[in-house]
Amino acid sequence: MLNQFRIILCQTSHPGNIGSAARAMKTMGLNQLYLVQPKHFPDTEANALACGAVDLLENAVVCETLEDALKGCALAIGMSARKRQISHELISARTAAIRAAEISANQQQVALVFGTEMSGLSNRELDLCQLLAMIPTNPDFSSLNVAAAVQVMCYELRMASSESKLVESESKTPLATSDDVEGFYQHLEETLIKIGFLNPQEPKKLMPRVRRIYARARLEKEEVNILRGILKLTQHPKNYHQKNDGDKE
Amino acid sequence: MLNQFRIILCQTSHPGNIGSAARAMKTMGLNQLYLVQPKHFPDTEANALACGAVDLLENAVVCETLEDALKGCALAIGMSARKRQISHELISARTAAIRAAEISANQQQVALVFGTEMSGLSNRELDLCQLLAMIPTNPDFSSLNVAAAVQVMCYELRMASSESKLVESESKTPLATSDDVEGFYQHLEETLIKIGFLNPQEPKKLMPRVRRIYARARLEKEEVNILRGILKLTQHPKNYHQKNDGDKE
Repeated sequence: MLNQFRIILCQTSHPGNIGSAARAMKTMGLNQLYLVQPKHFPDTEANALACGAVDLLENAVVCETLEDALKGCALAIGMSARKRQISHELISARTAAIRAAEISANQQQVALVFGTEMSGLSNRELDLCQLLAMIPTNPDFSSLNVAAAVQVMCYELRMASSESKLVESESKTPLATSDDVEGFYQHLEETLIKIGFLNPQEPKKLMPRVRRIYARARLEKEEVNILRGILKLTQHPKNYHQKNDGDKE
Repeated sequence: MLNQFRIILCQTSHPGNIGSAARAMKTMGLNQLYLVQPKHFPDTEANALACGAVDLLENAVVCETLEDALKGCALAIGMSARKRQISHELISARTAAIRAAEISANQQQVALVFGTEMSGLSNRELDLCQLLAMIPTNPDFSSLNVAAAVQVMCYELRMASSESKLVESESKTPLATSDDVEGFYQHLEETLIKIGFLNPQEPKKLMPRVRRIYARARLEKEEVNILRGILKLTQHPKNYHQKNDGDKE
């Protein structure tokens, strides 16, 4: 699905930006790079900044015109750093990524089109795009580097694509059961009374407050064991015994 | 609100990355840059790549340790390019940004911590973070440049901040700062040694494990006070004294 996305860079001046863009694409799983009239390409600086993504540069398609680069695409999204006069539909990068992902899910190609470092896309180039997307920036300093813009857009494309069904905490260690945790709370309460922190005649809101802390932590089985180990020694400290009456545990 | 976010770069090797990170931050409206033992700084290459964001470099806070850089923060989020062995709660960059935005909405500082270009954050550095966040990447090529990672994360923070304007009122109780929490950990360690649960000659992984429990809970100021109250009485129990020698506290 991510290989349905095409990144098109128009008239890029600095070859380093092409290299960084290739690296940005590959980290997000994209691989189709199109270059319209790049100033310098191929170029050693592009290769240096691509790091392990030189294969994308080697396979990059160099075109004379944006029309050529767009051939076969079902949707072309122009990227803009600022609001433009023209009456294109202006959407956020995130919305653009969602629309692009929907189309790519049907095995159709989608192009993301980036303009020059100095002035972005020309109006003529924009006319070839069906949508205009903007990465939200600081209105006082919107000078996003072109490779950085490619990075953000490719990240959004990855997030929007189903392949990003992702990271979130696959904590494999088993959580404590509620009876484990209740056993711990009971042990804790008893200990707090013993050390004189909790007055059973006037418990106030202490236990509910303490329970909230551990509830938020979502304790694992092993952690309950550690905490109960601490409570056990709180009630019968090893060193304390030895110093005071030489008791053996 | 965006000025409550702190970007911390640890032991960055290439000054160009510091400059690009500053530019990335400023395009998204962030301005607090902290540098822990940068290899070369200040540096002309950093300035060149910062473009119009040299002011962030001029105001950057250079620190000797990550502890120093985290002072005053209510939440520290470590950024990782890969899954790690340790059982930190692992969340996506997007989820991390939402949590960070909620906290900053209450006028508290949040740190995003980035490791070195070569090996990311050390385990010791990660222990100082309460959450571990990952930018989803291509599993076959996850080599995200550090400035590119800063760009994506700052973008997500900007997106989350503009969306989280509704959240504001939710959790009004102030979270403990990282120095409050570090003070608690120190007190806890000392107590565990005193009761004989922790052998300072052979500490194993006990403290990192215990820290993770409380890191997940994201302690409030008031809760740290409660927990330290418990530790104080664990070391000097009231009833124990009274029973054994009639001491008055």
